[in-house]
Amino acid sequence: MKLLEKMVISDGKVYDNNVLKVDSFLNHQIDPKLMNEMAKVFYSYFKEKGITKVLTIEASGIAPAILVSYLLEVPMVFAKKSKPSTITGDNFYSSSVYSYTKNITSNIIVSKDYISKNDNVLIIDDFLANGEAVRGLVEIVDKAEANVSGIGILVEKSFQKGRLELEKSGFDICSLCRIASLEKGKVIFNKADDEK
Amino acid sequence: MKLLEKMVISDGKVYDNNVLKVDSFLNHQIDPKLMNEMAKVFYSYFKEKGITKVLTIEASGIAPAILVSYLLEVPMVFAKKSKPSTITGDNFYSSSVYSYTKNITSNIIVSKDYISKNDNVLIIDDFLANGEAVRGLVEIVDKAEANVSGIGILVEKSFQKGRLELEKSGFDICSLCRIASLEKGKVIFNKADDEK
Repeated sequence: MKLLEKMVISDGKVYDNNVLKVDSFLNHQIDPKLMNEMAKVFYSYFKEKGITKVLTIEASGIAPAILVSYLLEVPMVFAKKSKPSTITGDNFYSSSVYSYTKNITSNIIVSKDYISKNDNVLIIDDFLANGEAVRGLVEIVDKAEANVSGIGILVEKSFQKGRLELEKSGFDICSLCRIASLEKGKVIFNKADDEK
Repeated sequence: MKLLEKMVISDGKVYDNNVLKVDSFLNHQIDPKLMNEMAKVFYSYFKEKGITKVLTIEASGIAPAILVSYLLEVPMVFAKKSKPSTITGDNFYSSSVYSYTKNITSNIIVSKDYISKNDNVLIIDDFLANGEAVRGLVEIVDKAEANVSGIGILVEKSFQKGRLELEKSGFDICSLCRIASLEKGKVIFNKADDEK
């Protein structure tokens, strides 16, 4: 998506050749008009897939997920990083997710009430790097015996392993901005999936 | 907001006379059409207030906040519950927030880059009970020497202290659903602010 690539170049910051900071428009402060344009691209890409539910993980996935779920006219569900008091007993699916940046493993949780085996799930997240969060969401969809119909990502770091592993598993992935390299602080893009 | 009250009656569940579970449409699974209708009511209520920024806290506040920020055509900022690696040094405002349900105090954080003293801030959150989260957000706005122009809440438990304390401080509060009592598992409403 050209508009997002333009924003990454103009407003993103690269640290340590590997970390891309986009918190001025994507994951701390959010530009709602840009976010809605991104949701429209996901809508166009996935609208024929019979999606019945949009699934993301708190917190940065929620903004794109609610906007695309509005366009698709299906419910949005976000996985929680801790079990709320309102989910009782074993009425939830969980999966452990390792965070490379924080060096911790945490359990993500979705109530059994909100994903069922007839669902065609669109997974949305803001970043794809090593793919841990998306893999955790896929595992939850699998546990619910539902179907992953697609994966929508705002910014992918193609040089980390997440994309390749998800592709090997045969998923239909739409990354709006695919970063080939951040070497020497310079952003090099691969062709985005919506541009193909 | 009549539509929200109707959903609370039909789909909400009351536990222990005090806990209202609305996670089938509001804060785990989200009905995007309902959420957008709520955002439209906030827009109508606050549109003349010169809002320059919408502020919320992760995670459940993000969905209503992004939708209302889209309508107001201003950026949305969400406070983080832990300091991301991309915020360095002391370039952030923080406030401690006590959670009665979890019995823990946590620091919430907003980068100094995204609130400044010329901002008129609309604070949005899903729930108002004891008012700790909103008070924490107000404190951050104060530290930035910005102005709180209004507070928009989806569901308020009017029988807990948050509403009264915020009113005493003179804030303009729009709660779309005001719960007077959950005694004996029955939901009794006060008149919502958008119905006045």
